[in-house]
Amino acid sequence: MTNNGIKANYGDESPIAAFATTPGNSALTLIRCSGKGSIELVSSIFSSPLASAQGNTVIHGWIVSNKKEKIDDVLVSVFRAPKSYTGEDSLDICCHGGVAAGKAVMEALKTSGFRDALPGEFTFRAFMNGKLDLTKAESVMELVSAKTEISRRHAVLRLSGSLYEEIDSIKKMLVGVLAAAEIYLDYSEDEISADAEEAEGRLPQKNIALEALTRLKKLSAGWRIERVYQEGITLVIAGCPNSGKSSLFNALLKEDRSIVTEIPGTTRDWIEAWVSIEGIPIRLIDTAGLRETADSVEKLGVERSRKLLEESDIVLYLIDGARGLTDEDKNFTVQGGKYIFVWSKCDIASPPESLNINGQIPICVSAKTGDGLVQLYTAITLEAGINDLQQSDSSSAALGTVRQKTLVDIACGSLEEALTLSDNDEPLDLIAPLLKDAVSSLGEITGEISTVDLLEKMFSSFCVGK
Amino acid sequence: MTNNGIKANYGDESPIAAFATTPGNSALTLIRCSGKGSIELVSSIFSSPLASAQGNTVIHGWIVSNKKEKIDDVLVSVFRAPKSYTGEDSLDICCHGGVAAGKAVMEALKTSGFRDALPGEFTFRAFMNGKLDLTKAESVMELVSAKTEISRRHAVLRLSGSLYEEIDSIKKMLVGVLAAAEIYLDYSEDEISADAEEAEGRLPQKNIALEALTRLKKLSAGWRIERVYQEGITLVIAGCPNSGKSSLFNALLKEDRSIVTEIPGTTRDWIEAWVSIEGIPIRLIDTAGLRETADSVEKLGVERSRKLLEESDIVLYLIDGARGLTDEDKNFTVQGGKYIFVWSKCDIASPPESLNINGQIPICVSAKTGDGLVQLYTAITLEAGINDLQQSDSSSAALGTVRQKTLVDIACGSLEEALTLSDNDEPLDLIAPLLKDAVSSLGEITGEISTVDLLEKMFSSFCVGK
Repeated sequence: MTNNGIKANYGDESPIAAFATTPGNSALTLIRCSGKGSIELVSSIFSSPLASAQGNTVIHGWIVSNKKEKIDDVLVSVFRAPKSYTGEDSLDICCHGGVAAGKAVMEALKTSGFRDALPGEFTFRAFMNGKLDLTKAESVMELVSAKTEISRRHAVLRLSGSLYEEIDSIKKMLVGVLAAAEIYLDYSEDEISADAEEAEGRLPQKNIALEALTRLKKLSAGWRIERVYQEGITLVIAGCPNSGKSSLFNALLKEDRSIVTEIPGTTRDWIEAWVSIEGIPIRLIDTAGLRETADSVEKLGVERSRKLLEESDIVLYLIDGARGLTDEDKNFTVQGGKYIFVWSKCDIASPPESLNINGQIPICVSAKTGDGLVQLYTAITLEAGINDLQQSDSSSAALGTVRQKTLVDIACGSLEEALTLSDNDEPLDLIAPLLKDAVSSLGEITGEISTVDLLEKMFSSFCVGK
Repeated sequence: MTNNGIKANYGDESPIAAFATTPGNSALTLIRCSGKGSIELVSSIFSSPLASAQGNTVIHGWIVSNKKEKIDDVLVSVFRAPKSYTGEDSLDICCHGGVAAGKAVMEALKTSGFRDALPGEFTFRAFMNGKLDLTKAESVMELVSAKTEISRRHAVLRLSGSLYEEIDSIKKMLVGVLAAAEIYLDYSEDEISADAEEAEGRLPQKNIALEALTRLKKLSAGWRIERVYQEGITLVIAGCPNSGKSSLFNALLKEDRSIVTEIPGTTRDWIEAWVSIEGIPIRLIDTAGLRETADSVEKLGVERSRKLLEESDIVLYLIDGARGLTDEDKNFTVQGGKYIFVWSKCDIASPPESLNINGQIPICVSAKTGDGLVQLYTAITLEAGINDLQQSDSSSAALGTVRQKTLVDIACGSLEEALTLSDNDEPLDLIAPLLKDAVSSLGEITGEISTVDLLEKMFSSFCVGK
C-alpha cells in the first residue's frame, strides 16, 4: 500500500518517537520509536551494541548524550520490519519512571534525529503497511478508552477481526450479486430468460441482497447499545434533603466492585464517580452537596441542579421512606421519561400499598441492608435501553465508531434503493451503480477504499504514542 | 544472599505482578512480573509458545482467560534468571493503554497464580539477589521522583555507582586503619616502638583516618544542597495589589522552558506551578488571587496568606515600580531573612538612587521586557543556599537520602571520637571499637550490613511496580 498522497507529515517514513505511557509517578516510562533508520539512530545514543541486534530481542544499556553523559539505564526492545506493530523498524525504550528521566531520554532521541509522532501515527503506519484494517485500527483506540469490561470485550472482538469479517462477508455477498447483474448487463436482457426466483424484480440473486440488507440493518441497530457501553450514561441522584441520596451513592460505589475511575479530589459542589452497573459505565452524580450549599448561593445552586438534571440520561428520584411522599416530591414526580422513582430506607418503612407515580411503582431500596439494589440495577439497565437478550448477544459482530455506523447506513440506503428499483422493474443499469455504491461504502469501513481526508481525520483523533 | 529472615511477604520468591506504568489514557500499559515459575504462569494464559522462550526475547500474542477468551493483544518480554532486573525469571507485559485492558490482564495474571507486588518489591529482590547495592537501589526511587535535570543527573550518578564507590573507598581506608590497630593490639604495646608519625596519638595511620573523616564531612555537608535539588523549595510572590505579581509569575513560567509540572486546574485561591530555576525545582506561588478574594472572606484570606509566607523558603516581595515604596510595603520590608525585594516594572520607572531595604538593594525587574530576570535567578539560587562553585561541583559523589546522611553522620561521630581518644593518648582497645562502628555504619549505607527492619522500611517507601 502506498501513501495515497498523504501530505508529508502523516505517513512520511521519517523516524518518530512518542511517550506510550504517561510520564508520572510510576516505576517505568515507555517510549516508542519507529521509522526508517530508527534502529541506527537509537544505536548512536546507546551504550550497548544495537545496530546488528536481531528483531524481537531486548537489550540492556544506557542512553547517553552526544557528550557521552549517561542519561538513563534502560531496556531497548528491537523490532525489525515487517515484524513490528507499524511494520517498520521499531524500538520500545523502557526508561525509569517519573518526569525527568523520560523527558531527558526523549530529548536525546530528538537530538539524534527523531521527530515527535503525530496523534495515531504509529497505528496510521500500521494501517498503511497492511498490518491492520481500519476496523481493527479503530478498535485499538476503543480499547484504550474502554471504561468497563464489556466495552473492553467488544473492542477486543473487533480487534480480533469480528467486524472486519462480518463486513467483508456482507461485501462479498453484494459483490456476487453485482457480478451476476453485470453478466445480465453484458448480454441483452432478451438473451437470458429470467429465473423463477427473480420473477419479482430485475435483480438477480435478490434473496442474497436481502440477506445482506438484514445483516447491515442488524449492525446498524446494535450501534445504540454499543454506544451506551462505550460512552456510558449519566445518572443523577435527586431527592429532598436527608432522603438518603449520599447513602445510596455510597452503596452503589461500594456494592459495585468494578469502579472504573473516581474523579480526583475536585472541589465541585456535587460528588461524582464512574461506576459500572451490569457492564454499563455510569457517571454517578450525587446532588447532595449541591443542596446543602444552596443556602448561601441559592441561585447558583438551583441553576446547577437544574442543568445537571437536564443533561442526565437517567434521574434516580429518592422518596424518603421514613417521611413518605412530601409536597416537594409531588412537584418532582410529575416528571416522566428518564425518572426512576426509588422508595428509600425500605428497612424502616414500606411504601403505601398502592403507591404508583406516573404509572411507576417505586423501587424499594435500603442502602443499609442492600435490599432492592438488584432490582434497581435492572431498572437502570432497562432505562439505558438494554435488555437481557441484547446483553447476551454481545459476542456477535458490532459497530465500534460513528464512522462505521455512518457508512453502514449509507450502504443500507443504497441497497434499499436498489431493491426498490428492482421491485419497480427498473432496468439493471440503474440498479447496478447503487450496488456498487453499497460495496464501496463497505470497503471504506475496512479501509480498502480510503481517501486522504478520511485517514487524516481518523488517525488524528487517536492519542499520541498509539 | 539469602532472605535474612525477612517475613514471608517481603522477599519470598512467590510470583509477583504490578503495574509499572499508571493505567490511564495512554497508548500502552506495562505490567511487570517476577518470581519462581513466573514464565510458566504467564505461558498458561498466553496464546503463543512461551515456556521455552529464550531470555531477552519479545513474543507477540494474546493474553487469554482460563475460558480461552481473548483478553488483550500484547507483547511479552521474557527475562531468564539471573539476567533480569530482579535476578529472577521475569516478564514485562506490554498491554493496550486505558483502564480496562490493563485491569483485565492483571486479573488474568492473578487468577493464574501471581500476587500483587508490595511497594519496592522488585528492587528489594534485585538487592537480595545482589543486582544492586542499597545506594543504587535508593537512586532508582530518586530517579523516578526527580523533578529537574540536575536532580535526575545526580540520581543517575548514584545509579552508576558514584556514591557506592566513594563510600566503599572510605570504608576500605578505615578497614586498613583498623587492621593496623589490630596488629598493635595483638602484640603488647611495649613490643612495638611507636613510629615518629604516630607520636601525636595512639592511632596508627592517623593521617588516613583524618582523610576519611574529611571525605565523610564533605559528603555530609553536600546533603543540604542535594536536598534542595531533590525536594525543591517554595517561593511565594507577595506584594501590594497591582504590583505586578501575576506578570512576574507568568514571566517566570514562560521564561523557563523546563516547567516540571503544573498543578492541574485547582480551585485554590492562589495559583501555583513548579518551575526549574537553574536546575532547582521551585514551587512558585502567586498570592494574587488570595488578595482579590480577601474582600469577601477577609479573615480566611489573611490567615492563608500568613501561613503561605511562613511556610515558604523564599519570599519575593514586589514593590510597585510605578507607584514607588508605599506604607504597606514599609510594613512588610521590616522582614529580614528569606525576603528578596524586587522593584517591579523597571521599564516604567527606576528606583530612587540610594534605595536600600534592610541592607538589600532591590533587584530591578521588568516582567514585560525580561530585564533583571537573570539577576533574579542568581538571587534566588543564592538564597536557596547554592553558589556557583557548588553547582559546578555537581559531578562528584553525593548523598541521596536521609538514611545515607544519618549513617554518614554516625560514622563521622564515631571516627571523631576515635581521633579524640587517640589525641588524648587513650589505649587502642578503646579506640578500635569506635573504628569498627564507623566501618559498620558505612557498610549499612551500601547494604553489606543490613537489618530486617531497615530493609523493610526502606523498600516499602518505594512505589509499587519498582
